Parts: sequence; structure tokens; C-alpha cells
Amino acid sequence: MPEETYTVAILGATGAVGTELLELLQERRFPIKSLKLLASARSAGKHLSFRGQPVTVEALSQSALEDVDIVLASAGASVSREWAEVAIAAGAVVIDNSSAFRMDSDVPLIVPEVNPEVAANHRGLIANPNCTTILMSLALWPLHQVQPIRRVVVATYQSASGAGARAMAEVKEQAAAMLADQPPPTEIFPYPLAFNLFPHNSPLTEQGYCQEEMKMVNETRKIFNQPDLRVTATCIRVPVLRAHSEAVNLEFDTPFEPERARSILAQAPGVKLLEDWQANYFPMPFEASGQDDVLVGRIRQDLSHPCGLELWLSGDQIRKGAALNAVQIAELLVAKRWLATAVAA
Amino acid sequence: MPEETYTVAILGATGAVGTELLELLQERRFPIKSLKLLASARSAGKHLSFRGQPVTVEALSQSALEDVDIVLASAGASVSREWAEVAIAAGAVVIDNSSAFRMDSDVPLIVPEVNPEVAANHRGLIANPNCTTILMSLALWPLHQVQPIRRVVVATYQSASGAGARAMAEVKEQAAAMLADQPPPTEIFPYPLAFNLFPHNSPLTEQGYCQEEMKMVNETRKIFNQPDLRVTATCIRVPVLRAHSEAVNLEFDTPFEPERARSILAQAPGVKLLEDWQANYFPMPFEASGQDDVLVGRIRQDLSHPCGLELWLSGDQIRKGAALNAVQIAELLVAKRWLATAVAA
Repeated sequence: MPEETYTVAILGATGAVGTELLELLQERRFPIKSLKLLASARSAGKHLSFRGQPVTVEALSQSALEDVDIVLASAGASVSREWAEVAIAAGAVVIDNSSAFRMDSDVPLIVPEVNPEVAANHRGLIANPNCTTILMSLALWPLHQVQPIRRVVVATYQSASGAGARAMAEVKEQAAAMLADQPPPTEIFPYPLAFNLFPHNSPLTEQGYCQEEMKMVNETRKIFNQPDLRVTATCIRVPVLRAHSEAVNLEFDTPFEPERARSILAQAPGVKLLEDWQANYFPMPFEASGQDDVLVGRIRQDLSHPCGLELWLSGDQIRKGAALNAVQIAELLVAKRWLATAVAA
Repeated sequence: MPEETYTVAILGATGAVGTELLELLQERRFPIKSLKLLASARSAGKHLSFRGQPVTVEALSQSALEDVDIVLASAGASVSREWAEVAIAAGAVVIDNSSAFRMDSDVPLIVPEVNPEVAANHRGLIANPNCTTILMSLALWPLHQVQPIRRVVVATYQSASGAGARAMAEVKEQAAAMLADQPPPTEIFPYPLAFNLFPHNSPLTEQGYCQEEMKMVNETRKIFNQPDLRVTATCIRVPVLRAHSEAVNLEFDTPFEPERARSILAQAPGVKLLEDWQANYFPMPFEASGQDDVLVGRIRQDLSHPCGLELWLSGDQIRKGAALNAVQIAELLVAKRWLATAVAA
């Protein structure tokens, strides 16, 4: 019996995540009958390559969303808010990489290694979590299964890619300018990022946390289905191109042996343990970039808390932090035959 | 009565901290009778400028340390171990920027804004704390005075300057190479730092903490004279040139109102509160570089702990993190007439 194939649309095909989605569908041999690359009118007419064939980028429109089985949306929250319903009404399942619907109670928020079963209950829309949340959840979930995590104190080191392809280019332009003693251009970021760093520039909430930090708090709770999980985060942008890193302090009710955490994480899906204590060689963005797995290491007993554990991770923000997780959700829907749920709903 | 003046020697005069010491002595009009610039034989014969006059760098030797009142040592731990005793025997007070003697029980470890009175008890040697410790202690001490801090969870963002002037140059060379698609040179650092970051490459202890992290744990306890203060640290090198930043999570026994912390820190010596919530403008290395004060901001009630407080700081690693603190210790000794203690000992 021939494998079933699907019409897939990438919404935001020319962006940093869109480009990666295209590569991943190809690399992972996603069963595609037809691929549509959708973007703003500005990008329409561009040609991208898929399986050696040129594909023309189309402007996003209602007709472009007809007869699509799966929409991988990565064009920002406002585009998703405007078009997700249109795509669903036309019969598609939307896997949305934006923050638009993540915290809606009837929208599954999925990391396939953590809560795949929740994806079965979708109503045509599945949300892809925020990058920092996905990366952290891969390292924390296997530990949480063995001994519940009570509190998370995380500080992030977030790359320019989180603000898109133009932001990555801007950091390089800034570095070149500064090396030539010229003032750095700042169009995307509010402040120079090359040779500098600053708190994540997402809007601040009343409590003083920025939205990026609240995503880590709220999304982790939702994915883990543990509304009382205590999480605090400090999110910082650093002059790195495409991988995020995180310093994570965990508290449990009873001590968690580092050696035990190590052996659990060595076998955890989506995780690669990277610890060479002799060489002082641990996860770093250069190693994580382009890798599917989140790199985890420097697992230590917290000297300040008898039930504390310290760990350090780096993961490709564009790949597992965004595009790969979305493609894995699509693969899950296909493998479990959960695409139909939307039609039945 | 004319002001008393002193013969001061800078040991390691051509390094990043040495250069800054020279500038600070000039800028702060330290009462100098005679200035000696000492360095390795390799640098001897170089000319540096002090108060508009050229000063020749001399090779470090026993005779060069004769008749010196104050030695500001910044040539690394092994040089300090070899020469501190010689300088003290010759009648000088040594203010040592290295880690060689910091944890010795009979050596005062001083941050002038925190524990100046301890400096009175020196026996010819006073240790300057590690950069990350100095910067953090300025922000924490005023809070600790009002309500004792019970636990500190800190993640650092440390600039290249911590590894010296050549390391700063290397990061720029790496960035230039990478922008030209060339492999980055790595002579000082074990891995490329430009557009990358990695856990601090100081030797690892048995507990899995690197020495840099243990300095934050042990030195903070010593400076605060609170051996039971619980501290954990994750120290990360980032591609920034000369200011360090720190994400600090604090726990108290009872809630600490952010507004109260803010008003305390707004008046704290050596601290500048920098919080523009509307503009998302907070401490960052670009603002901290060249400033005497450590910039503190993003003071938030910790959402994960009823008695927790989050704060964020950036401070010039070469200046307050090293050279300025050493010069302030010298100023303290002069002002309090504590130089004599060494002679009396």
C-alpha cells in the first residue's frame, strides 16, 4: 500500500524558521504530496528549492489555503490570529509557531518528547511552544518523571535568531561596524547586541517580568500539566547567532543525585549529554547549532540547597526550538492518524 | 601642612588591569611621591605615561621593591605568591588582585563599600576579591544589612577582559575572522568566544563547580562574614569586551518588597540604579563599561518564591571589578592611616 501523502503549507516561508521548516521537511522525508510556500506579498514570486525543484512563494490568501492538510505557521502572532481560523475552516490542521494561541485552554501545547498524547485532542490547531521553553522542557521532563521538580530558577542566554533572520544579519553588521570603529546599526534591536547583551526586549508585564520570561513560566506549567510548578526566569539576549543556552537551577523535595540525573538524561529523547570534565568541554552554542538534540551538561549538586541540582544546556533555537518541534508535531499527527480529529470536530 | 605622599608600585603594569590602575591613580589624584611600573622582563623598557610624564617599565626584582609604600599587584597568582613576601619584607603594603591569598584567614578580603573596617587588621597584605564577587557584593550588601540574605542563585555573563588584554583582542580577531568566513583563532580561550559562549574555563573542582564559581561562593561568605550564607553560581563567558553581568536570585526569610530594595539601592555606595521600565532599558555592558558604579536594575518579586527577589546587574570588570576596588583600598589605608599597621606588625 502506498504511503499516504499530504499537502503542506509553510506560512512565513522566507523567514529564519520558515527556511528551516523547508529543509526539515526535505531532510526528514515528510510524506508530501504538494508543498505550498506562503509569505507576505513582499516575498511573493521568490523561488525556493524543495527536493531539487524550484517552488514559487505565493502571497498568503484564502484561496492559497484551500485543500491544505497541514499548515506550519511561522509568520508571527498577528498573522496567525488573522489566518489560523481561515485555514482550519478550509480543513487544515494548523501547527502554529507563534504565541497567539499557546495559552488557550482548548489548544494543545506540544513538545512531542513530553506530552504527545495531548495532541490527540486538537480542534484543528496545535501550538508550538516558545523556543526557551521547548529546550528546557526536554532536559527537565525526564527528571520530573522520576522525582517531581518543585522549583525552577533559570537564566537564559538567547541568540539573535529568536528575533528572526534580519536580527541575525544585524548582529553581524553591528560587529563589522564596531570592529571598524563605526557606530553599530540598530534597526531590529533597541540596543547594539554585538559585544553587548541586554534583558529580552519583549514587553514587560506588571510584575516586572517580560513576556519572554512569562512564556517560560506559563508554558512549562501547561506542557508539564502542573499548574503549581514554581518557575522564575531571567531572559537575556546575547550576541550569539542561532543557539540558546540556559543556566537552570532545580529544586526537588528530596536530593537528586547528579549521577542519577546524568544516567537518565543520557537516555532521554531529544537530549544529548555533553560533559567532558577533564577538558572543561560542555554545551555551547557552536556545538548546538544545527543539531536536533538539546545539549545538556555540567550537572552538579547545588551547594546552596540539599535538594538542588544545577544544569546547563544549549539548543538550536531555530531547529528544536522552533522548526523541528513543529515538524515533529506534524509527524506525530500523521503517525497516530490524528489529522482526522480536526475533520471530525 | 602638605599632604603626605607615597611611593606606589604597580606590578603587572602593562596588563589590562595594570593599565587601568595607572589611569585611576592619575584620575583620582592619589597622593603619589613616586610611581614604579613593574612587569615581566619582556615588557621592561616600555614607556607608559603618568601625569603627562613618561615612566619606564622596569623588570620586577627585589631591588625594584625597595622603598615602596604600596604595591598594587595584578600580575597573576603565581607572581603574587613569589613576590608578595619580598615586598612586605621590604616594608610595603601589598594590595593583591590575584586569587593567591584571598581565602587565607589572616588576609583581609576587602570591598571598601562593604567591610572597610576589616582592612585595619592587615599584616602587610590585603586581597582584592574576584571581579564577579565584588560586583555582586555591592548590590547585595545593602539589602543584607536590612534583611539577611539566606540564599543566592547567580548566573554570570562574563566578558573577555576577565582573561586579560590579549583575550579582549582575541575576541575581536575571532569576530573579524568569522565575518570573513575564516576559522577563528583560539590562543587564549579554549574555544571561540565571538558569537559563542561557554562555561568559565577555570579548573573544575571535585564538586563540579569551576574555581570561578567557588570564588563567588567562598569570597562572598568571607566578605560578608557569614560563613553559612548559601550561594550557588554558574559562571559563563560571553562575547562581551569588558563588563560583566549577573542574573541574581535572592532568598530571604520574609518577603522583601521590590520597591524597598529599589529605594535602598538608589542610595547605596558604588551602586547606580538603572531601571526605565517604559523603555525596557536596564543595565547592560555597553552602559557599564568605563563606569565606577555597578548598574543594578530589573528588581522583581520572584514569582516562584514568596521571599524571593530577582535582580540584574552589569559592572565594569576591569574598573570596579578589579583596578578601582584596589585603588579604593589604597585610598582607605591612606585616609585611615592604616598603612602603618604593616610597619608595626
